[in-house]
Amino acid sequence: MRIGNTHFRSIWLADDPGVVRVIDQRKLPFEFELMELTSLDDACYAISDMVVRGAPLIGVTAAYGLYLAALKSQAKNWCDELKAAADKLLATRPTAVNLKYALDLGLAELNCTGTREGMIDRLFHLAMALAEEEVKRCRMIGEHGVDLITECYEKKKAPVNILTHCNAGWLACVDYGTATAPIYKAHDEGIPVHVWVDETRPRNQGARLTAYELGEHGVAHTVIVDNAGGHLMQEGMVDMVIVGSDRTTRNGDVANKIGTYLKALAARDNNIPFYVALPTSTIDMNLSHGREIEIENRDAEEVSHMPGWDDEQMKSSRVRVLPSGSDIVNPGFDVTPSRLVTKLITEKGLCPATEEAIRELF
Amino acid sequence: MRIGNTHFRSIWLADDPGVVRVIDQRKLPFEFELMELTSLDDACYAISDMVVRGAPLIGVTAAYGLYLAALKSQAKNWCDELKAAADKLLATRPTAVNLKYALDLGLAELNCTGTREGMIDRLFHLAMALAEEEVKRCRMIGEHGVDLITECYEKKKAPVNILTHCNAGWLACVDYGTATAPIYKAHDEGIPVHVWVDETRPRNQGARLTAYELGEHGVAHTVIVDNAGGHLMQEGMVDMVIVGSDRTTRNGDVANKIGTYLKALAARDNNIPFYVALPTSTIDMNLSHGREIEIENRDAEEVSHMPGWDDEQMKSSRVRVLPSGSDIVNPGFDVTPSRLVTKLITEKGLCPATEEAIRELF
Repeated sequence: MRIGNTHFRSIWLADDPGVVRVIDQRKLPFEFELMELTSLDDACYAISDMVVRGAPLIGVTAAYGLYLAALKSQAKNWCDELKAAADKLLATRPTAVNLKYALDLGLAELNCTGTREGMIDRLFHLAMALAEEEVKRCRMIGEHGVDLITECYEKKKAPVNILTHCNAGWLACVDYGTATAPIYKAHDEGIPVHVWVDETRPRNQGARLTAYELGEHGVAHTVIVDNAGGHLMQEGMVDMVIVGSDRTTRNGDVANKIGTYLKALAARDNNIPFYVALPTSTIDMNLSHGREIEIENRDAEEVSHMPGWDDEQMKSSRVRVLPSGSDIVNPGFDVTPSRLVTKLITEKGLCPATEEAIRELF
Repeated sequence: MRIGNTHFRSIWLADDPGVVRVIDQRKLPFEFELMELTSLDDACYAISDMVVRGAPLIGVTAAYGLYLAALKSQAKNWCDELKAAADKLLATRPTAVNLKYALDLGLAELNCTGTREGMIDRLFHLAMALAEEEVKRCRMIGEHGVDLITECYEKKKAPVNILTHCNAGWLACVDYGTATAPIYKAHDEGIPVHVWVDETRPRNQGARLTAYELGEHGVAHTVIVDNAGGHLMQEGMVDMVIVGSDRTTRNGDVANKIGTYLKALAARDNNIPFYVALPTSTIDMNLSHGREIEIENRDAEEVSHMPGWDDEQMKSSRVRVLPSGSDIVNPGFDVTPSRLVTKLITEKGLCPATEEAIRELF
């Protein structure tokens, strides 16, 4: 999508095929910097230090990381080197499902009796194909989801107000995003949309990334604190909610960024449709119920310290926002029960959040 | 209540009766500073800039403000001056009903044919009496509300987990607080309690003030982001919710800090009692429904800039947390419909959130 007048993806191969470029997402929205990845270590650092984040983008970065490792591998023991490289990449973010998916595909390409050159070529094509696959899935989510926005606009004849939580945007993917894909598609087709962007404490991915994305692409949006969405719904200022998902169980329960459940409750209480946009790869058919999803407890510093931009000193900074003696807990996700989900928006089409309907997708 | 080993109220008259002292709540919990109010303008500034905040404390501050205006009034046109002073005070914060209540009482004392000295004396006594009245009401709220905690403890035989939103503590009142009064009472009686403290974006009154209050008084507590409460309720980690109110209509609809409604929805969805602790002065019998309550839209900077403490530079600082080009809206309150309120906890006793029951209180 656009940043300024330039079209960007979140990861791409430079003219020099030994260089992969990514946007340093740690610095957004205050500084726009590209980072060049030219080695396995660069790729590992980019993932573990959250230069790149978002499950789909992590997977694609890992695939490129394996390719970069192959490029620099020794002529003799390249096969062992690549197995070690995959292990190293896998250890960067142990919980990310897409990381394992990408590396499993990479390891399946390892033919240790073949040539090193052939291997480099196959890993190159795998990384490129994975990136394209992510782009295509998101584009298809957009194509299916845009109808919901168009229908709303045709009824309302006024800009469609969409609330979203966290960043399920193109920065988390490769292009388009998941929750944002229908929004970008509607915007690009000339349907007037306006997005309520939940700040999304504690890491502020909404305020930092979703607001940035939408602003750069020219989509009208307003940042609100996470507390405000219910009130806006009561006031008739929200036409629909679209969020992403980190993992959805086969009965349609949706694990997503902490706070999603509260917005789903408010949407239900105000008869507002609540949509979850996700590639079918996010649906975990092995889990029958959201209760089975383990919720990650994250670092207390995410709550106690707020990073941002010091306008006076013109640099990144952070402030502590509570007394140093207070305890903190920081669950990273919550589970929205399927009964609160109006529809899933997948690359294969819209789907009720029921086990029967989800099984039909596969 | 206690700060360190000293007992404090949130507002008091200095030895010099021309000086009213308040704790500068903008600086808590990082710096403890008192501010002296010696004029109407000081009082207006203290209210509008949130040196003092919380409906009961705002009311008492307004009463002292009127007294300070009387002290400095001209010998000739003091009556007109005081009417103008009341108007100026009333304009500082539109949602808090206690402000209007205090000023109406003050204006009722205006006897324009009497002496200026008599007037000063009456406004002095009014302010002192209002402060005492708030203290007494909060103490009574604690006495009625503690039974709910005790009952829960007797059933559970384990610490009672209470979630609260914003700061309805003694800092918002004069002493004890409203939502916190039953908690302090339980704690002081040896009932084990643990409080989940919502951060309460955008101004972080939970993280900054409630956590500070509870910590200074020795009450076990854990700060969470506003997004986390629903998840904790789903996990069985919340036994009850107690919040305050800025204005409650005669049918039991509760205006309180933005985000309260979301917690009420989650409490209902998980069969957790949702209590609203409030003095009956917060009940606006003139309003029949929450829809009639004017919701204050506050400054965008509260959302865009996060104040806190710079641990490195050891000073207060603030960081911008979103792109400078993004729009912001910042509603200060929301309305929790009476159907989601389990009970009101008032100084006159517990009461269902219905018009019939509320009328019986008066």
